[in-house]
Amino acid sequence: MSALDELITEFAKLPGVGRKTAARLTYFLLKQPKEAPLRLASTIERVAELVGPCTVCGNLSEADPCEICEDPRRDASLLCVVEEASDISAIERTGEFRGHYHVLGGRLSPLDGVGPDDLRLDALAARVSNGSAVKEIIVATNHSMEGEATATLVRGVISDPDVRVSRIALGLPVGGDLEYADAVTIGHAISARREMTS
Amino acid sequence: MSALDELITEFAKLPGVGRKTAARLTYFLLKQPKEAPLRLASTIERVAELVGPCTVCGNLSEADPCEICEDPRRDASLLCVVEEASDISAIERTGEFRGHYHVLGGRLSPLDGVGPDDLRLDALAARVSNGSAVKEIIVATNHSMEGEATATLVRGVISDPDVRVSRIALGLPVGGDLEYADAVTIGHAISARREMTS
Repeated sequence: MSALDELITEFAKLPGVGRKTAARLTYFLLKQPKEAPLRLASTIERVAELVGPCTVCGNLSEADPCEICEDPRRDASLLCVVEEASDISAIERTGEFRGHYHVLGGRLSPLDGVGPDDLRLDALAARVSNGSAVKEIIVATNHSMEGEATATLVRGVISDPDVRVSRIALGLPVGGDLEYADAVTIGHAISARREMTS
Repeated sequence: MSALDELITEFAKLPGVGRKTAARLTYFLLKQPKEAPLRLASTIERVAELVGPCTVCGNLSEADPCEICEDPRRDASLLCVVEEASDISAIERTGEFRGHYHVLGGRLSPLDGVGPDDLRLDALAARVSNGSAVKEIIVATNHSMEGEATATLVRGVISDPDVRVSRIALGLPVGGDLEYADAVTIGHAISARREMTS
């Protein structure tokens, strides 16, 4: 196989990238000055070599513990539980949350062979054990079947009555069209309605 | 900027890849065993270092002249003129064409600052000059406005009356729906109709 075909094959392994897109990416890189593909290659290499999970929260980072765990300005009484490390950057982008995180490393999904033991639940329980600063846990797993089951599981792990456990709100997204929303979402959006102050 | 953010930025420079897709690709690579991203990185590096344009036809290849130019089983009397090197692999995939290629390196597009001098027209004229084996030139530029203008330009470059110049057919694609085809395509498909033998 030629180097060109090999790169197309490698690109085609990425999610959402078919062979045609992979070929387009390959030829695009070849049209750039040589520095562009070389920089991409060295960045991938650097990420593969340097980035790993934080042993405290599971976030992906070059440092261990990660920058978020080490940041003294963050509120240690708030712990946000997410499925994947990628969810952290989604939440960080909002700027709404200044607490700490805990990555489960997946969602409960027996059909895919993911059971409670595959999630970082023991580590979560240990972080919230007696004497910890955590006062509230925000369960931010996805609003899917698996995400809800995972949320219930997380709830069960927290036995300390002094620790509040909350779930992120379900409702219509900004720009979401009522006409196209599913019934469950609309139902929740109505029951969780807020009073409008005049 | 962290290595992670840097890789997202690098991926987002690829065509059709926005920041969200770039983040998805990055986190996907980090979920794989380390060998997967390292192999992708080294393949990109190898392509950037080894693959370049063939000095004869302009095809992208590790060899110069490329495998197609060097293949003695291919018909030297047929020359297919394409816009980009990526078009060659699209045509090769059909297995219909066993001649040689000539890559123009773009299409005539004054608005994008691409004039006749930016295309490999002199090289084409030289390849078809007196004494060459070329008997027919198939102009396979795209059926776009720029592609048609480029085809006309190519036609003008070939002055040898013994060299036939043809244009790839315009018509409805396989699986193409008459209802959704544009009028020009349907018009050509009708005027270029073929008799059905019983």
